[in-house]
Amino acid sequence: MATVTELLQPIESDLEHLLKDLRMLIGSGHPILQAAAEHLFSAGGKRIRPGIVLLLSKALSVDGNLSSRHRRLAEITEMIHTASLVHDDVLDDASTRRGVDTVHSRFDHKVAVLAGDFLFAQASWHLANLDNLDVVKLLSRVIMDLAEGEVKQGLYKYDSKQSIETYLEKSYCKTASLIANSAQAVGVLSDISENHLKDLYTFGKQLGLAFQVVDDILDFTSNDEQLGKPAANDLASGYLTAPALYALEENNSLSKLIEREFSSEGDLDHAFNIVRDSNAIPRTRKLAEKFAQRSYEAIKWIPDSPSKDALLLLPDYVLARLY
Amino acid sequence: MATVTELLQPIESDLEHLLKDLRMLIGSGHPILQAAAEHLFSAGGKRIRPGIVLLLSKALSVDGNLSSRHRRLAEITEMIHTASLVHDDVLDDASTRRGVDTVHSRFDHKVAVLAGDFLFAQASWHLANLDNLDVVKLLSRVIMDLAEGEVKQGLYKYDSKQSIETYLEKSYCKTASLIANSAQAVGVLSDISENHLKDLYTFGKQLGLAFQVVDDILDFTSNDEQLGKPAANDLASGYLTAPALYALEENNSLSKLIEREFSSEGDLDHAFNIVRDSNAIPRTRKLAEKFAQRSYEAIKWIPDSPSKDALLLLPDYVLARLY
Repeated sequence: MATVTELLQPIESDLEHLLKDLRMLIGSGHPILQAAAEHLFSAGGKRIRPGIVLLLSKALSVDGNLSSRHRRLAEITEMIHTASLVHDDVLDDASTRRGVDTVHSRFDHKVAVLAGDFLFAQASWHLANLDNLDVVKLLSRVIMDLAEGEVKQGLYKYDSKQSIETYLEKSYCKTASLIANSAQAVGVLSDISENHLKDLYTFGKQLGLAFQVVDDILDFTSNDEQLGKPAANDLASGYLTAPALYALEENNSLSKLIEREFSSEGDLDHAFNIVRDSNAIPRTRKLAEKFAQRSYEAIKWIPDSPSKDALLLLPDYVLARLY
Repeated sequence: MATVTELLQPIESDLEHLLKDLRMLIGSGHPILQAAAEHLFSAGGKRIRPGIVLLLSKALSVDGNLSSRHRRLAEITEMIHTASLVHDDVLDDASTRRGVDTVHSRFDHKVAVLAGDFLFAQASWHLANLDNLDVVKLLSRVIMDLAEGEVKQGLYKYDSKQSIETYLEKSYCKTASLIANSAQAVGVLSDISENHLKDLYTFGKQLGLAFQVVDDILDFTSNDEQLGKPAANDLASGYLTAPALYALEENNSLSKLIEREFSSEGDLDHAFNIVRDSNAIPRTRKLAEKFAQRSYEAIKWIPDSPSKDALLLLPDYVLARLY
């Protein structure tokens, strides 16, 4: 299976360029924001979102070159994504994200609020100056979905009555909307036909959902370095994802533990075991596979190129994180 | 002198309607956001910003009626303004604003971050759906200016070397940009000629600057209810406004007190007395009068109507707060 670095190889130097631009754009003129920008846009992150935008842009370009507007769109998606992460970390009181200190814990919650606002503001300014109302609408929908996703997530905390549809709507808002709408925006900037714009949206939406569902499985299956066992962070925080919701369908005793917010000794371990001993993880994996397959199918029409090849490998790459 | 209620009389019912809409728009579906929305958009606030947008819209309308897009623009300006206030209060750790609890202190900083993000997101979504790229650009510039103003404010804290121009740039970003750009946006939606668009921008810019300068004077002259004397909150927080900057030109001993951040007993009182005993307040008042006059001059061309009369009284109303 290809690594993410191999997948992003066709646009590797473009992505480096983008990160350099972002550090300059955000950091200029303010020492603390600069430190936050270095921290946020340093090398090492996977940058899968701007990577997808750049790969699509290249795959849809007649001469294989990237226009400045396509590059700017990739920057905007990364700004919006990063801004929402920085604020989410404040809302979740998270001290690390994928093993790296959050802005909120490295600096303080005020720097995190300011840095997030500054990123959103830059994003909306650069977005307006792409001079394309359709692209403005697509990306402002993303900003709206991210805020609604955060609201939904808070609203359904510890709610064992929520449906799998509610969970998927929240996942769409928080993860898939950005990939779906920015993929479609690439198509708008590349003057693609209306039908294929929908395909690009579908590719991004299904890929984003697959990605989120896989993430939610990993929360139950991958070992936390310190704990030596899965952390089940989502479950512990009351965020009920597909594995927990499927397990609830099989074993209703789980709902009692959730509704008392795991307040008794051993509740969380007990809940975790119910999920693990049920059919929930295999069912969730099937769900992820369905999304990945739909994502793959949606872009087969793109003309052959190394960038297209990389895009077609992405759905499998997302699933491969499970093995 | 007219009260603000009298000034806003031509659009009184429109403004009530707008607040009702905003409460619905923000609060729907989330109990805590709803409580925050009730708190933020309850009756009683002056709502001078959407008031200006509505008055201008009415004054520039051929039949004196407001279009739904003009109303929506007024809502967007109030959303952006409120979002930035809510986040500023987090950054400033403010527990009250004009005597009312901040969202941040009534609820907590997480609700404030979420409510602000949600408002910004709603604003950018409704903005895109006004379907006018020029308006999108004007208002996204405002969002950018607000973030830059906040950055500048932090950057120049306790900096006694800053110029009056730096102070005015910050005041433009934090206060005048919203009024200037939304006034121009009214003109765009009303199909006003290019020249007059600039006049509308000037009207808003100069009015906003007058407003901010007057606010900064009041911080030195109006008595705090509890203290029984001016609180000089800005000075105490290290935010150097026109009165402090003019006083610095006259009496350099003030700079020592500022640079040690008023850390010795009596420093703040001493600094306050230096400002009061200098010519700084009268000079600052002259500055406010200059801005107010320019604001007045910029819209004399608007056809006569009760809304125009109200707009022409606004610069004087801003100054009258000083007497």
